[in-house]
Order: sequence, then C-alpha cells, then structure tokens
Amino acid sequence: MLIVQKYGGTSVGSIERIQNVAAKVQARVADGHQMVVVLSAMAGVTDSLIDLAQQINPEPAAREMDVLLATGEQQSIALFCMAAETIGLPAQSLLGFQAAILTDNMFGKARITDVETARIKELLDEGKVVVVAGFQGLDWDSGDVTTLGRGGSDTTAVALAAALGADVCEIFTDVEGVFTTDPNVEPSARKLAAISYEEMLEMASLGAKVLDIRSVEFAAKFGVKIHVRSTFTDREGTMVVPEDQITERLIISGVAYNKNEARLTITDVPDTPGIASQIFSPISQAGIVVDVIIQNTSAEGKTDMTFTVPKTDYEAARRILKDIADQIGAAEVLGDTEIAKVSVIGIGMRNHAGVASKMFAALASENINIKTINTSEIKISCVIDEKYTELAVRVLHKTFGLGEDQPPVAEDVT
Amino acid sequence: MLIVQKYGGTSVGSIERIQNVAAKVQARVADGHQMVVVLSAMAGVTDSLIDLAQQINPEPAAREMDVLLATGEQQSIALFCMAAETIGLPAQSLLGFQAAILTDNMFGKARITDVETARIKELLDEGKVVVVAGFQGLDWDSGDVTTLGRGGSDTTAVALAAALGADVCEIFTDVEGVFTTDPNVEPSARKLAAISYEEMLEMASLGAKVLDIRSVEFAAKFGVKIHVRSTFTDREGTMVVPEDQITERLIISGVAYNKNEARLTITDVPDTPGIASQIFSPISQAGIVVDVIIQNTSAEGKTDMTFTVPKTDYEAARRILKDIADQIGAAEVLGDTEIAKVSVIGIGMRNHAGVASKMFAALASENINIKTINTSEIKISCVIDEKYTELAVRVLHKTFGLGEDQPPVAEDVT
Repeated sequence: MLIVQKYGGTSVGSIERIQNVAAKVQARVADGHQMVVVLSAMAGVTDSLIDLAQQINPEPAAREMDVLLATGEQQSIALFCMAAETIGLPAQSLLGFQAAILTDNMFGKARITDVETARIKELLDEGKVVVVAGFQGLDWDSGDVTTLGRGGSDTTAVALAAALGADVCEIFTDVEGVFTTDPNVEPSARKLAAISYEEMLEMASLGAKVLDIRSVEFAAKFGVKIHVRSTFTDREGTMVVPEDQITERLIISGVAYNKNEARLTITDVPDTPGIASQIFSPISQAGIVVDVIIQNTSAEGKTDMTFTVPKTDYEAARRILKDIADQIGAAEVLGDTEIAKVSVIGIGMRNHAGVASKMFAALASENINIKTINTSEIKISCVIDEKYTELAVRVLHKTFGLGEDQPPVAEDVT
Repeated sequence: MLIVQKYGGTSVGSIERIQNVAAKVQARVADGHQMVVVLSAMAGVTDSLIDLAQQINPEPAAREMDVLLATGEQQSIALFCMAAETIGLPAQSLLGFQAAILTDNMFGKARITDVETARIKELLDEGKVVVVAGFQGLDWDSGDVTTLGRGGSDTTAVALAAALGADVCEIFTDVEGVFTTDPNVEPSARKLAAISYEEMLEMASLGAKVLDIRSVEFAAKFGVKIHVRSTFTDREGTMVVPEDQITERLIISGVAYNKNEARLTITDVPDTPGIASQIFSPISQAGIVVDVIIQNTSAEGKTDMTFTVPKTDYEAARRILKDIADQIGAAEVLGDTEIAKVSVIGIGMRNHAGVASKMFAALASENINIKTINTSEIKISCVIDEKYTELAVRVLHKTFGLGEDQPPVAEDVT
C-alpha cells in the first residue's frame, strides 16, 4: 500500500517522540508499505516564533510571517530524517517548494492549488520514506513561501494523498479518534469506528478539533480515506470515509457543542427586498464570520433577524449593527454572549423523522429552554443558555444511545 | 550607489540589535543608496540547532543538516523585514533558492557556482531593500538546499556584490576592521585603512578571523571592494581592495600567528622519485589538511621531511606516518604539538630585501629559536616554541613599526 501519514506537533514534540515516530514509520515499511510522512513543527515552536515576531512588530507583513513560521516544519523534517538514519531507515526531507505543494498567494491562509508528485514518486521508487514539511507551500507565480494556517498540515497530508492516489491518509494526533461527544463532558463517550465526510465536517465546524475542516473538504472532494488515530497507542482510530463505506449506520453519530459564539438580534426590520444584504455586507466587510442566520416570518411588514458571530467579534459586530439599525429604521439591537450551541449530527437522520422532536423533548425534560433552532440535512442545532451546555450534551448523548454502556440506536430501531 | 551589506550573527543577535541594523540600513537608503542586505543566523541559533541534531544523530546526513541549519538565516531575514516595516522601510526577504544563489552539491561546504540577479534587480527597482539569507544556496540539479559552511554569509555577500556589480560590499562584524596584529596580544595594534586581497588571504589563512577566506578569494577574482567594519560604531573600518588601490604602501601590513598546528617530521627518508606522494597521499585521503611542507636537501640519498597539520589531526597523522615510515624504510617519526607559527605579511616586501633578516634578527634578540622557515612572495612564516608566541608577535610588531605610537615603516624607508 501507499500510505500518507501526518504527525502533529505533540507527536514530534521532543527528541524521544521524533525517535518514536521514526520507529512507527519503520514498522510500516517493514510490512512492505510505501510511506510519505508529513510533519508539523515541534509543539511550541510555532507559538514561540509568533511571539518573537510580535515583539518586533505587532502586525508583521503576512509574507514575512510565513517565511518565519515555515522554519518550524523545516526543522522537524530534518530532525526526523536524522532519527530515521540512526535506525537504518532511508528517508529524505522535502520542503514545500521541493515537494511542489503549490498554493495561491494568500499568505497565512493559502489554499493548495496543485501538487506535482514527480519528485516524490521518484524517491518512493528509490525505496525512500519521503518526509514532507506540512503547513507550507509555494506560490508558483512569485516563488514566495506560503503557509496554510493553523491545522494546515492535515491539509498537506490529504492533498498529497489525493495527488498520489494513496490508499489511506493516516492523521496521527494526541486523541484516539473521533468520539460521539467530548469525553471530558460525557465519560461514556464512545470512539466511532467510522464517520462520513459530511458528519465530520459538521463535527469539525462545531468545534470538535480533531481534524482541520479544510482537510476534510479536500478529502471529500477527492475521496481520500482518512484514518484519525493516536500517535501514542497502536489501536485503530476512526475512519473518515464516503458515506457508502460506513457499515454501522447510526441515526446519530455524535453530539457536538460550541461555546465560542454570541448571538445578536435586530428587531422590527422593515421587510423589504435587499434588506438582508444591507445588514450583512458591512459585517462581512469587517472580516466577521457570521454563522447561523435566522429570520422569523414577517408580521406587518416588519421582521426580526438573529444570527451568531464568534464571541471575540461580538463587540465589533454590535457596534456595526447599531449603525445599521439607525440607517434602516429598525427598532432595537439585542445581544447575548452567554449562549452555547448544541447539535446532534448523523447521516441517518435523513431518512428518519422524529429526531428533532426527540431532541427537543430531551432538552425539555431537563428544563433547558431552546432559544433558536437551526437544521441542515444531517444536523440539528439548538442555541441554549451557556450554563446548561454540559447537561444538554449528556442528556442528548444518552437519548440517542451513544454511550459505551448503551445499546446503539441503529437505523432500524426507530 | 548599490551597496551590499552583510551582518553577522552578533550584529543580529537580539531583537534590539535587529532593530538597530534596520535603522542603519534606513540611514543609507535615506542617503539615496540601493541596498542589498545579507544576514547570518542570530548568534547562538546555529550552534543550538547543531546541538539538537547531535542529540538525535551524532553523524547526521549532510543533506538534512543543511535543511536544518538553513532555518537560522530564514528566521533572521523574516524578523529583519518585520523590524524594517515598523520604521517604514520597504524590505523583502529572499531565501537562497529565491535569490537564486546556485551552488554545487557539496552539502555543508557548498561552493557558489552562479547567482541569477533578475529578481533582486526587480525588487531594487521597486525601491525595496532586498534582504537575502546568507550561508544557504540551492543545488539547481537536485533542488536541494545547501549551506556554504562556517563564515558562508561573507561569501554570499561578496558573490551577490560581484553578480550585481555593487559599488562596495560592506561586511559588518563585531570588530572595527583588520588590525596590524591581534590587539589582545599587542595593545598598540593599529587598524589598517586598506589591505590588498593577497595580504588579507594570508592574514585570514593564518587565523585572523575577520573575513572568511573564500569570500576574499571570490572578491579578488571579481574585483569586489570589501569594507570590513563594526556594526556598533559608525567609524570607517578597513577596505580590502586590489593592490593598486592602496595608497599607504607599508612594507609589512601585519603580524599574524597561529597556535592551532602541530609539526611532524619523518627522518632518513630514501630520496627516490615519488616518495613525497607515497607519504602525503594516505594523509590527504584521511581528510587531513597539510599546511607547510619542508624538505631538507638530500645527503647520502636520504632526506628529512617536515610538515604541519591541525592539532586536532595530529594523533591520526602520526599513526598514518608511522605505518608509512615502516613501509618506505624511513628512520623515525618525530612530532611536536607545542609550536606556533608567526608570520609577517606585506605586499611591500616583494621589492625589498632585508625583511627576512630583519625578522630573524628581531626573534634572535629575544632568544627565540626558529624551528622552520617558510616564505611566500608576500609572507615570511617561522615556526617557534608555542610559549614564545606573544613575545614574538610583540617584537615583530615593533620591529616593523606597526604600532599606533610608531612612525610606520613605509616602502621608501628601507
């Protein structure tokens, strides 16, 4: 098999850990596999480089920031190859420009546009482990070094797996896989054997930070099988795969939550064409990402509009919204930062009515008031008071039979 | 003017020093000059990277070592550009591969084969300070990152100055220039206003570590004017220039010494054709660099051969030499590690007899015994007992009138 592996910063966070990773790779080579290894910077390195930059210039040019940050992964791959050499494992490092990870020119958050695999294939054919710097790329037009942003090494690995037609992309991290919910909140949370791309995207975007969301999008687009697993055990993790490859089809795969958003409501908005654009354009121009948007049915030509923004952008969004309210003749701007979003996610719910009502009933049984509701094909999200977050997660986890001690609620049960 | 400047590790050894260097560059831009700035890694960074590598692998592959070490300069140039930005100085960094510093594939000691200046010229035309990573290059054939070895940033700067046709290459360091001798040994040592390439080469190879020797060779080949000066003052340093540009023509420009060599003698060597090769081939194959070689006149078909090697290679060379002595039927191998070489250097001595005898007389006046003598067109070296090194330097410095308190001995005096 051709396997692409990615090891995160914690996995290569010390000399001993780098040696441990080299031994893991060697074991796979001994099994007859061809290996491409993508590494992050050693844990803490990127943060200290950012710190150093901040001391010189609080708002450094993104181009130079990328030149600086790219050194972290460059050091990891060189050190890994040195460790590999000591155990007789032939390995060669490739920087972003050498592996031909081509990107656009959006420094700090570049997108991969192409991967030229000729050199990697040549090295694999020579029997070498190819060790690629994660997180970094090359803007072909300018020859500039770019970085892909936080979590970018996941995307590097998936992009390489796609371009090489790898059999699997193994993402090694410090957790054992994707769980039905946060085990810190609900100790009976169960590791999923498999999850679909769509579910993983909903989980990731809701704050289950196992995989970078762009890497999942990339994997879905090119059908790359991802195996999320722990560096520190040999146990199987979770496969992230196309929906049709999932055998155990649960109605609900997981319960996610997000405490990092705040809610804003603008009331008595004149219900005229183009009004939504008038409200959201200035907010988006300020670089604020709006998540859920809910517009209630209009009554007497007026409507209320509610949406959520990251808590860190709450004050800025509120100021902008007040100006807009004056301009368009709306009544009031209401805000709430003490909220949380809890969601149930599962491709199984497509074919099953009753998931929503079951969710609402479960929350009601614990006297948790629902502030807003928002649904997609495979997700139902409720905004609730922040203080009830953990309670809500636990009751939903139990209601949908996700615990280790519970019989799973499969599709044919409801 | 088009000026190439190089700042060493001490000059960029802290955030404050990087800011100081940015201000120095800005002052030159304000004077209307176009600036290319070559930086070393911040002081200590390269050593800690080597240390990290050693902990993983005592003898790491040179290719991966270069990938690792190149990060030091990459960090410096990014940080410099960030500092430049805060004072409104437009600057852009270029890595070895971006500046197209092309080298051969001798990792760890690569030689620059070509410099493509198109991109640098473009950036200069846009009014930018171009900030180039020293010490690193690109092997064009393989696309591998290479490094030039210790002191390589000097060579990067001189090579850029040559390729760009710069008016001057300023090498900023932590000393004020080239002195008539080591001021730690002789406090009256005088800073030279100018020195020829040939003299500088002799000084550098004898251990006056102001400039990397390869950069001087490069400068001599392409006629690049070097100005060696201190980062920490605005005073003029020493110009290293073609001989015909030196106005103050001293007979002797400096007194150098070297305590890092040891002496070996093999006695009663049969004086047959090819015997020297039989002796020195195995030593050179062991990677040992032989400096001075002296063969006395043959008597009765036998001769003695004496040569010096770095002290660190003394034991290895001695073992090899003993084997050779047995093979060729020589009598004995003698060795001495307690030696030093003192030299007087000056292009002026070409036209003047009497320099050698004056040197020998001066050493004799202090009862310093001369063990071997070796001369070139512009240098006379004597090997003496190590314990007399400082005494010899001081007496020679005085004899040739090099002190600040002395009238210089110019060409027309003798």
